[in-house]
Amino acid sequence: MPSGTRATPSIAQVGEFAFLSRLLPSLPHTPGTLIGPGQDCAVIRGLTRELLLTVDALVDGVHYRPGWLAPRHIGRKSFLVNVSDIAAMGGRPRFCVVSLGVPRAYPARQLAAVERGIVAAASSCGTAVVGGNLTRAQALFVSIALLADAPRRRVTRQGARPGDRIYVTGTLGDAALAVRALSARRQPPSGARRRFAEPPLRLRAGQYLVEAGIVSAMIDVSDGLLQDLGHVCTQSRVGARVDASRIPVSATYRRALDADVALALSGGEDYELLCTVPERNVPKLERSAATLGCPITCIGEVVRGHSVRVRNADGRLRRGGATGYDHFRSPQG
Amino acid sequence: MPSGTRATPSIAQVGEFAFLSRLLPSLPHTPGTLIGPGQDCAVIRGLTRELLLTVDALVDGVHYRPGWLAPRHIGRKSFLVNVSDIAAMGGRPRFCVVSLGVPRAYPARQLAAVERGIVAAASSCGTAVVGGNLTRAQALFVSIALLADAPRRRVTRQGARPGDRIYVTGTLGDAALAVRALSARRQPPSGARRRFAEPPLRLRAGQYLVEAGIVSAMIDVSDGLLQDLGHVCTQSRVGARVDASRIPVSATYRRALDADVALALSGGEDYELLCTVPERNVPKLERSAATLGCPITCIGEVVRGHSVRVRNADGRLRRGGATGYDHFRSPQG
Repeated sequence: MPSGTRATPSIAQVGEFAFLSRLLPSLPHTPGTLIGPGQDCAVIRGLTRELLLTVDALVDGVHYRPGWLAPRHIGRKSFLVNVSDIAAMGGRPRFCVVSLGVPRAYPARQLAAVERGIVAAASSCGTAVVGGNLTRAQALFVSIALLADAPRRRVTRQGARPGDRIYVTGTLGDAALAVRALSARRQPPSGARRRFAEPPLRLRAGQYLVEAGIVSAMIDVSDGLLQDLGHVCTQSRVGARVDASRIPVSATYRRALDADVALALSGGEDYELLCTVPERNVPKLERSAATLGCPITCIGEVVRGHSVRVRNADGRLRRGGATGYDHFRSPQG
Repeated sequence: MPSGTRATPSIAQVGEFAFLSRLLPSLPHTPGTLIGPGQDCAVIRGLTRELLLTVDALVDGVHYRPGWLAPRHIGRKSFLVNVSDIAAMGGRPRFCVVSLGVPRAYPARQLAAVERGIVAAASSCGTAVVGGNLTRAQALFVSIALLADAPRRRVTRQGARPGDRIYVTGTLGDAALAVRALSARRQPPSGARRRFAEPPLRLRAGQYLVEAGIVSAMIDVSDGLLQDLGHVCTQSRVGARVDASRIPVSATYRRALDADVALALSGGEDYELLCTVPERNVPKLERSAATLGCPITCIGEVVRGHSVRVRNADGRLRRGGATGYDHFRSPQG
């Protein structure tokens, strides 16, 4: 091999514009994209009058470490964590723009895989990637801003009332289980690793729970159940009581940790939906399990007060507090 | 002072949620913001049917080095580089979301200044900051996605035709002059430094040039005039001839470099508007100087072919080529 070349050229060797000129023609357009990437702005139309807008980022060395995620999964996950926010407000994602920071030595082929992961995940959610920005950075970051059609009803973190039941979709704790193993350089159970790499898609559930008027408040569980429930309580000016024995965990989780749900309560990165449901809506919710496309489990109830308490197996209540993930205070992740 | 504390606490000492809980109430809302920051998504309305969407990022160590920009200017500039893209398509910026990556040791007070810089710049452009994301990162990055009302006419990089005149707003080269001095650890002329810190606002000019139907193609000059003109030529399938003697430069630039416009031609970070104007629209353009809010100068013309050529003072034409900024190939910046 001649000196100065490599089997896998870096993004610096390929160059910003050459990379983009290969990438852009491969992007699928969706109806409503009048002008896609390659101009100063995208031009879009066909949205509802009310819109949802959100942004989230994945950073190398912060959200994952070398070897934890394949490039395609980095792309896929960066998109899906945004979708999770849209799902929590019952929206339909439509258009996104992607901001990439890339180290000079990053292999161009891997960057293309990151992009393909974003585009494939976006396409599977009916979303067009209509623009982006590519800049150099010390460590890879992928920041995606996502625009969605708003539902006709508005659900936030603020509507929970004492007496409402607290529900959560899917299962909790697997992603945190994977992170704990990976941080200790152990191989995580494959189910947990898959869950860390690929957040669940709760769009249909979120849309139904909002449009059918079932939920009084909703949030996506990204920083740990107790912390995100704490946000709902603070913003709704209520307290909550959670039953540890009812926390839904996967078979993988149970094999690894048996009945210890501490990690499921505070681990983070679940990207499930946490919602509060007035008692009168509970029968309707229980009947609509098939429509949601995922399990949904009652884990407790909203109470007067302002604290989140967990009832353990021994029947004792303990303060749940804000024990989840803080990007600057939490040691790992 | 007790050990373990500092005069200026870092973002890690303050914590993500404490920082945000102080910041969010200070954000001004604009009409159309139904739900601002603090929920999973913002809810917005009151936009036109066609929208513009763009994203751009500023990265510490890439777009600037320590001491080059005050925190407030980092915020301000991150917003204004996005506005420049909106201006180039004649839009009216309305809503933005901010994605921040912040090192653990970054002083919380400086981060608050970055935020204030963003919010002040946004407010001055009639734009609401409706959401954001705060994550840890090795080096500070600020990525902003900006949503704008689209104008009734659509202008892109694709409409230039042979015979069109080429115009540029304001002056070129000052930001590059500042970067060159700062990179060599010299003090740049104050005018140049100000220009690097504060991109010009060309919203009114962009809106008028598009809405009045004056321009056939437009782009913002961010990567250097010749390179950005090259994008217009490639996408319009034309060539261009630029007259070096007509490149508009500031008094600061002329004092520093006299008649040498090489840096003004390829330096980058000008954030001026470059447009092509069919000859029949030239009288209208010349009459509307006052409406634009900035000078606009004819620097050459669109020709058949596909190359960008520069006529130097000696009358000789040389190939302009793509000599501007590539994020991965250019050594500085």
